[in-house]
Amino acid sequence: MCAVCDYTIHRSSHHFGWSRDFEPTLVAKPGSTIHFECSDSSAGQLGASSTVQDVIDLDFGKINPVTGPVYIEGAMPGDAIKVTIREFVPSGIGWTANIPGFGLLADQFTDAALHIWKYDPASMAPALYGPGGKVPLKPFAGTIGLAPAEPGLHSIVPPRRVGGNLDIRDITSGVTLYLPVEVEGGLFSIGDTHAAQGDGEICGTAIESQMDLTVTLDLVKDARLVSPRFTTPGPVTSHLDTAGYEVTTGIGADLMTGAREAVMRMIDLLCAEHGYTPVDAYMLCSVCGDLRISEIVDAPNWVVSFYFPRIVLS
Amino acid sequence: MCAVCDYTIHRSSHHFGWSRDFEPTLVAKPGSTIHFECSDSSAGQLGASSTVQDVIDLDFGKINPVTGPVYIEGAMPGDAIKVTIREFVPSGIGWTANIPGFGLLADQFTDAALHIWKYDPASMAPALYGPGGKVPLKPFAGTIGLAPAEPGLHSIVPPRRVGGNLDIRDITSGVTLYLPVEVEGGLFSIGDTHAAQGDGEICGTAIESQMDLTVTLDLVKDARLVSPRFTTPGPVTSHLDTAGYEVTTGIGADLMTGAREAVMRMIDLLCAEHGYTPVDAYMLCSVCGDLRISEIVDAPNWVVSFYFPRIVLS
Repeated sequence: MCAVCDYTIHRSSHHFGWSRDFEPTLVAKPGSTIHFECSDSSAGQLGASSTVQDVIDLDFGKINPVTGPVYIEGAMPGDAIKVTIREFVPSGIGWTANIPGFGLLADQFTDAALHIWKYDPASMAPALYGPGGKVPLKPFAGTIGLAPAEPGLHSIVPPRRVGGNLDIRDITSGVTLYLPVEVEGGLFSIGDTHAAQGDGEICGTAIESQMDLTVTLDLVKDARLVSPRFTTPGPVTSHLDTAGYEVTTGIGADLMTGAREAVMRMIDLLCAEHGYTPVDAYMLCSVCGDLRISEIVDAPNWVVSFYFPRIVLS
Repeated sequence: MCAVCDYTIHRSSHHFGWSRDFEPTLVAKPGSTIHFECSDSSAGQLGASSTVQDVIDLDFGKINPVTGPVYIEGAMPGDAIKVTIREFVPSGIGWTANIPGFGLLADQFTDAALHIWKYDPASMAPALYGPGGKVPLKPFAGTIGLAPAEPGLHSIVPPRRVGGNLDIRDITSGVTLYLPVEVEGGLFSIGDTHAAQGDGEICGTAIESQMDLTVTLDLVKDARLVSPRFTTPGPVTSHLDTAGYEVTTGIGADLMTGAREAVMRMIDLLCAEHGYTPVDAYMLCSVCGDLRISEIVDAPNWVVSFYFPRIVLS
């Protein structure tokens, strides 16, 4: 239910992957406010009573459904769609998994793992993660994008110039996002809703959680935008940073190696000082820890830092 | 002047590069609180009345002096030095330069450029950068480290396992930093003081500014630390984030390319919307904008984002 919306698109109107040839589920005028019902990224394969066997048995043909697409009247290649993110209606149930073969440390974490989250969708109080973890929540849509120009069906997994599976934690309520249009009508879709995630989404999954959400779609003619950009109205980490951070570093000539090393050292620290198993620490880091590039100019060694918010364990 | 300090090390006790063979300027017991007088990273070659010609004429043999080294009694390889960062006494004068051949976009910004900053070292009010820029200040030491185990003289430029030119913006007052010891006594030195810097230090320089500072050096026996780590006591971006951020993205299979693209798009945005020249936008991004890795798991494309704090231009 959405009092200010012009349309509601139901969960059943979804697609897997991106294609310029998908039939629009809605043709909307610029300025339309639309309520989207979104599935979680497993399309319901994982839920409150799932076990790790369900992770092993995942059907990857049904991963990451997105609700849509919406054809925006007048949108042409070279324009941008301006997306105003208004509201999320979280479900209260979520999951985080280590999916073999997927994630920053896939070579080290080869066994499937699963954590089921239950949180209060009204208060959005921090969600519990034993031993002693309390993860602040901030819902957002991991996948938000338009159809790419290239013909054919494209995997949902990688993000592209037109957006898609961006997994940018800060594209949340109050944000204005601009996406470059490559096909007539733009063909906007959204899904992969997350209750919380750190910068990097390092284990490959966030707090994956079914939600409904409301956005307004506007058209910016002749925007000549090269890749997505967005504006946040205020702080992006104030839900996480009040108690500061534990920070580990990876130093060397390759940013990917630096990122991996910084994360490995944080996992070691969480196991040694807080009693987590390695895979539990890995999944916890994914939902609340941030990868930052501290310096990228002191050749030949760059510094990638991993910031773990102390409030989670205080 | 430092009421709580055990020692003061003067600016004249500095060295260029790192070596295990440098004579200690001080032998200190663990727990000593030490006041360091630090030069700016040009060792005084650039100052309040400098011009761009002085950037062209820089003597790179005299770059980035660090004050020290301090031999910490009892420190042995395998231990860690715990550095408690207490206080900075800024000078009120700083500079930011584009130094040809140095920086994330060195291929695009081939001409030397220089901005001289004057700020109030008492109030530390935001420093002006025309047109319309006001940069919040937060002093820190860009270079903080120990001598590496390998014999010989090592360049000051790259950071290493033992720290050094880390250029981590958040290693500021109140932070506790741990550095791995590789030689007897550790041989701690510090310098390269900055009045402000963004994550990445993308043009290669921050607000480079002579400062004095106070730290306490403690010893952690048998710490088995692999690379530097630190703890912050509170938020790290609250001086920057109250008005939110403009964010640009770089999406693709290489993190370095993504970082470059995200920064290039922010420079374009600042030039188009705020009247900066490209090189002025580049230097402004270096002193206040942050490089973050938004996702590093949606193969084959990663998302690097560049966050520019709107308060700087509001």
